[in-house]
Amino acid sequence: MIRAAVVGAAGYIGGELLRLLVGHPQVEVVAATSRTLQGRQVDGVHPNLRHRTKLTFSAEDQLGRCDVLFLATPHRETMQRMPEFLEKAGVVIDLSGDFRLSDPDVYEDYYGTAHEATGLLDSFVQGLPELHRERLRTADRISVPGCMASAGILSLVPLAEAGLITGEVTVDARTGSSGSGAKAGAENLHAERSGALRVFAPTRHRHEAEIAQATGHTVRMSATGVEAVRGVQLLSRAHLAEGVDERAIRSAYRSRYAGEPFVRIVAARRGLHRFPDAKILSGSNFCDIGFALDRGASTVTVIAALDNLVKGGAGNAVQCMNVRFGEPEERGLEFTGLHPN
Amino acid sequence: MIRAAVVGAAGYIGGELLRLLVGHPQVEVVAATSRTLQGRQVDGVHPNLRHRTKLTFSAEDQLGRCDVLFLATPHRETMQRMPEFLEKAGVVIDLSGDFRLSDPDVYEDYYGTAHEATGLLDSFVQGLPELHRERLRTADRISVPGCMASAGILSLVPLAEAGLITGEVTVDARTGSSGSGAKAGAENLHAERSGALRVFAPTRHRHEAEIAQATGHTVRMSATGVEAVRGVQLLSRAHLAEGVDERAIRSAYRSRYAGEPFVRIVAARRGLHRFPDAKILSGSNFCDIGFALDRGASTVTVIAALDNLVKGGAGNAVQCMNVRFGEPEERGLEFTGLHPN
Amino acid sequence: MIRAAVVGAAGYIGGELLRLLVGHPQVEVVAATSRTLQGRQVDGVHPNLRHRTKLTFSAEDQLGRCDVLFLATPHRETMQRMPEFLEKAGVVIDLSGDFRLSDPDVYEDYYGTAHEATGLLDSFVQGLPELHRERLRTADRISVPGCMASAGILSLVPLAEAGLITGEVTVDARTGSSGSGAKAGAENLHAERSGALRVFAPTRHRHEAEIAQATGHTVRMSATGVEAVRGVQLLSRAHLAEGVDERAIRSAYRSRYAGEPFVRIVAARRGLHRFPDAKILSGSNFCDIGFALDRGASTVTVIAALDNLVKGGAGNAVQCMNVRFGEPEERGLEFTGLHPN
Amino acid sequence: MIRAAVVGAAGYIGGELLRLLVGHPQVEVVAATSRTLQGRQVDGVHPNLRHRTKLTFSAEDQLGRCDVLFLATPHRETMQRMPEFLEKAGVVIDLSGDFRLSDPDVYEDYYGTAHEATGLLDSFVQGLPELHRERLRTADRISVPGCMASAGILSLVPLAEAGLITGEVTVDARTGSSGSGAKAGAENLHAERSGALRVFAPTRHRHEAEIAQATGHTVRMSATGVEAVRGVQLLSRAHLAEGVDERAIRSAYRSRYAGEPFVRIVAARRGLHRFPDAKILSGSNFCDIGFALDRGASTVTVIAALDNLVKGGAGNAVQCMNVRFGEPEERGLEFTGLHPN
Repeated sequence: MIRAAVVGAAGYIGGELLRLLVGHPQVEVVAATSRTLQGRQVDGVHPNLRHRTKLTFSAEDQLGRCDVLFLATPHRETMQRMPEFLEKAGVVIDLSGDFRLSDPDVYEDYYGTAHEATGLLDSFVQGLPELHRERLRTADRISVPGCMASAGILSLVPLAEAGLITGEVTVDARTGSSGSGAKAGAENLHAERSGALRVFAPTRHRHEAEIAQATGHTVRMSATGVEAVRGVQLLSRAHLAEGVDERAIRSAYRSRYAGEPFVRIVAARRGLHRFPDAKILSGSNFCDIGFALDRGASTVTVIAALDNLVKGGAGNAVQCMNVRFGEPEERGLEFTGLHPN
Repeated sequence: MIRAAVVGAAGYIGGELLRLLVGHPQVEVVAATSRTLQGRQVDGVHPNLRHRTKLTFSAEDQLGRCDVLFLATPHRETMQRMPEFLEKAGVVIDLSGDFRLSDPDVYEDYYGTAHEATGLLDSFVQGLPELHRERLRTADRISVPGCMASAGILSLVPLAEAGLITGEVTVDARTGSSGSGAKAGAENLHAERSGALRVFAPTRHRHEAEIAQATGHTVRMSATGVEAVRGVQLLSRAHLAEGVDERAIRSAYRSRYAGEPFVRIVAARRGLHRFPDAKILSGSNFCDIGFALDRGASTVTVIAALDNLVKGGAGNAVQCMNVRFGEPEERGLEFTGLHPN
Repeated sequence: MIRAAVVGAAGYIGGELLRLLVGHPQVEVVAATSRTLQGRQVDGVHPNLRHRTKLTFSAEDQLGRCDVLFLATPHRETMQRMPEFLEKAGVVIDLSGDFRLSDPDVYEDYYGTAHEATGLLDSFVQGLPELHRERLRTADRISVPGCMASAGILSLVPLAEAGLITGEVTVDARTGSSGSGAKAGAENLHAERSGALRVFAPTRHRHEAEIAQATGHTVRMSATGVEAVRGVQLLSRAHLAEGVDERAIRSAYRSRYAGEPFVRIVAARRGLHRFPDAKILSGSNFCDIGFALDRGASTVTVIAALDNLVKGGAGNAVQCMNVRFGEPEERGLEFTGLHPN
Repeated sequence: MIRAAVVGAAGYIGGELLRLLVGHPQVEVVAATSRTLQGRQVDGVHPNLRHRTKLTFSAEDQLGRCDVLFLATPHRETMQRMPEFLEKAGVVIDLSGDFRLSDPDVYEDYYGTAHEATGLLDSFVQGLPELHRERLRTADRISVPGCMASAGILSLVPLAEAGLITGEVTVDARTGSSGSGAKAGAENLHAERSGALRVFAPTRHRHEAEIAQATGHTVRMSATGVEAVRGVQLLSRAHLAEGVDERAIRSAYRSRYAGEPFVRIVAARRGLHRFPDAKILSGSNFCDIGFALDRGASTVTVIAALDNLVKGGAGNAVQCMNVRFGEPEERGLEFTGLHPN
């Protein structure tokens, strides 16, 4: 059994980690910490876990040693406390933003604060098994990408690596409300957020930097909150390199993702479900990727969707854990999503 | 011109009052107060009023004398400050819960606090023109019923008064999220509230007492939050008195509401829109009422719907103002609702 | 391996059966029939099954013999063809309405057509393991209750059996849009149905008869379509027998459902999640049940929620299959639902 | 009084025309035609018009002469029948797609069928008062732009005309479900469409051609269906010409739209409502426009929102009618939208 602990377990990512870990046959959850809810039952906050766990939230200072520590902690605080976390577990899987960008200047540029643990940056492996599976098998420090970044990286890297696209990439990201976490604020009030099309980042969303880092392209990303609790969808556009056609695109995805358990290429000629839609992905660990070429094949439009709390967060983290601990990669992540939903 | 002021203008009821008053050709809004937003522009908080008003929020102590004062203030505080409010305007229209129940014991029972202005209770007229139009023409103190209570009172009083129903009335109320106001809290977080069917009051919702007071029947009401921002729908059930049939019910409604500008009887034999649905009432001042008899005509099921912020609040208040000031009753309340919406 | 087939696999209940059966480690799906889509891939219609199955829809006349046959077929047609279906499999699990009511007169009364297979009625066992587990272990013909009926039966039978309630029971049922199936019609158009509070059956919904049959009480049920794709919530009210208090109610549920894997009693004193809400049950096989007593303990309000396609349909059917074939009852039904969702 | 008729009055655009025309003090609706519903009451289909009109649908061949004829008819059929329509009224306002593109080759390219009334193309004036007010004062043939096109044209033309942007413009359009009309089909089924992020046109949506025609730029537009009934939001991106800064952009919009009653520039530094959101525009005739520059001012992101049935259709048409008939331009279009909604 893998002894796992979750720091910051009362939030949405924390709750999703618990859902997946509690249901994982080879994992024992030894601690779920919360600063404000210690002593209270986990299923009082995450009611989907009723009958599934008797865990109570514990204080962070009660955290003992474990095999793997998942960090669902705020950025900045995470880098400040990382040395302390690293002492707690052989493997640390960080879901904050602090170790996603390898260049501290870029970090400062996008986060508005200097990086405070630059010496640790190089020791983290990016938590995307599709790109870094071999390194993850032995990685002790794993940094899981942002939810929108995961969709962007998975959908654009195959084209960038194969040299199929050129120049700037524009990314139009849409996201559900769970991405902004469980903190109550006017911006998350149901009456304000319901049915909204809220452009909360017309330019320079932080995840833009992650996609740029992974693809090597200039990325111009906007982010809009749409009516959904879970779900991220990215619509990206890039110019095609000379002579690239639909077959080349399809082939690049196929060769990259053949055999991948959690990436599906979805690009049908017709039907309701031609392109990726986060609607059917809630709870699943899939990232669906589709694409369409403009007539004349001068540009490609790439569509990617995932559940921000699963493949865009907790599910991805558990997949990394499976890779690291030699478990079958799909274990605990079998849920296939619902239709209709 | 009627010089009107709104106390508590930053909330949802306050904003709706401003929308209606700003658009009313015979009203000048002389003040919109807010404790926390004084000096800020009204249309920053209520963005639908952009290009409609240049008003800024003022502090309450700057409130001068006006013709009509609308109170969108919390219960308890309202009764405590009522003497002060009464000095500000010839006519006070209160949208809090403090002057809705004429019996202070019932108030204490439902609100959990003793009434602190019992001497003023009798001086308030219930703000429902359909029931009290004549008294409202000269009323200087008007108390507007609760949103769910309005739907319950308008739909059940005609049957109760005509002696068509007997015994207990059960009321199943469903409400949108705007009813709980503009305060951010975990219960109103979009991720928690979206798509919810939240039974927040299985028994003894405060509006139950208002319906009981108006009908003289024992009322058993539950309240459930449903996915909607605006809108209230009540489904009520009562036993029919001996010999009552569908015609008697229809006739009771017709005679009560013939000529009423804002009550519509909606009870078709077929079609999508057979019964009242709050979905098409957003922004309008209608209360739609429908009904169906059980086979054997032993019980009647009454369905009523309205927009909680309009006919269940601000619109009703403006209608009362029109009555009181001799304006045409529909003035400023012409918007008919949208389909589809 | 259990060889299973689904008739009517292109609909929503059919799709949900496929989701659960494809993911069940002891089941092989040998056929999924559709009249209109034969030859087409199952995952074109149920896109959540991409990467999970390569099944194609087959014609009904190609249906061979199997161990268990699931019928997701329309009522009326189902009873007409039942003799044919019974030849196909040792065990038939019917999800239509045709074998739910044991009294053909009641059937005719509620379905508006005479029962055409009255000779078979007695041979069906009601597919609710919580009530009929022992009989189901050997049952070859199983009739799964209606979605709303399941919630009503599971939540009310313990009280009725223990003699805790008296007289009529009123049931206010709310349901998502997937309950009306995958047929396109004006009533299911998104623009009409979105955000609706549509009272589509103010009285005498068919599921009322099932609840009455199971409880022995007169049931007065209304059904309202609410904004949700999945999910059913019932709010029922009954008078309490003399001397019944909260403890007696709680005890009745506990003794009935202690150890039940899929029934949870949810009745907290406070918190967002005090009472059952279908929102967190999508995809799970739970039926959550809660209750509240009116002050004075004269009436009880019972709240029950489930996913209409799972515990209210396909999940319940698979649970019955597990019981019948000696599988662990939770197998294939482990998904615990999402929060937030 | 202006005698107006609506052809195709049973659809969503038709219904919205009726809502606005019935409420317009200077208009008499003399006919509302429907092929399938003739003789039925208008308010049975458009229930928001209960108590507002006693109109019944009439057959098209009963259509007499009127002052203004609104065509809410399908493309292709409209151009075929235009000669017939032109005989019916002095002024024809067409809401179909047939007379929006002045170049018949572009029409054929985007609509997949040859234009069949090329001789009439030049006689139509584009129905956007903000761009063509003077011509509209005397225009007898008016073609109202597409819903997404209206948002794109109004938000991009000022920048294009002033030479502030260069090169290709990418447009990411999001739209509610009412845009696809009142016809029932699998794609509009609530269970499929609710909460969807459906990329229904990854490239070459027809409205792209209208924006290209108006701006003179190459436009690359995608269209995604989002969870909303009403509402369109466009997020467009273009490179800025040398030396263009935020002030230049703001100034271009201001000089173009100063005094316009229905265009609002919304680009705040902070707050929930910084940028245009269709959520607060339902029922109103506003087009809200905002923008943000990337750091370094190399690109501009333009955000535009409107209600597709109002400023993107029926409201715009009524505004054109007001211009044409010398009515105050805001008449009948006073509704300001709701917050929250």
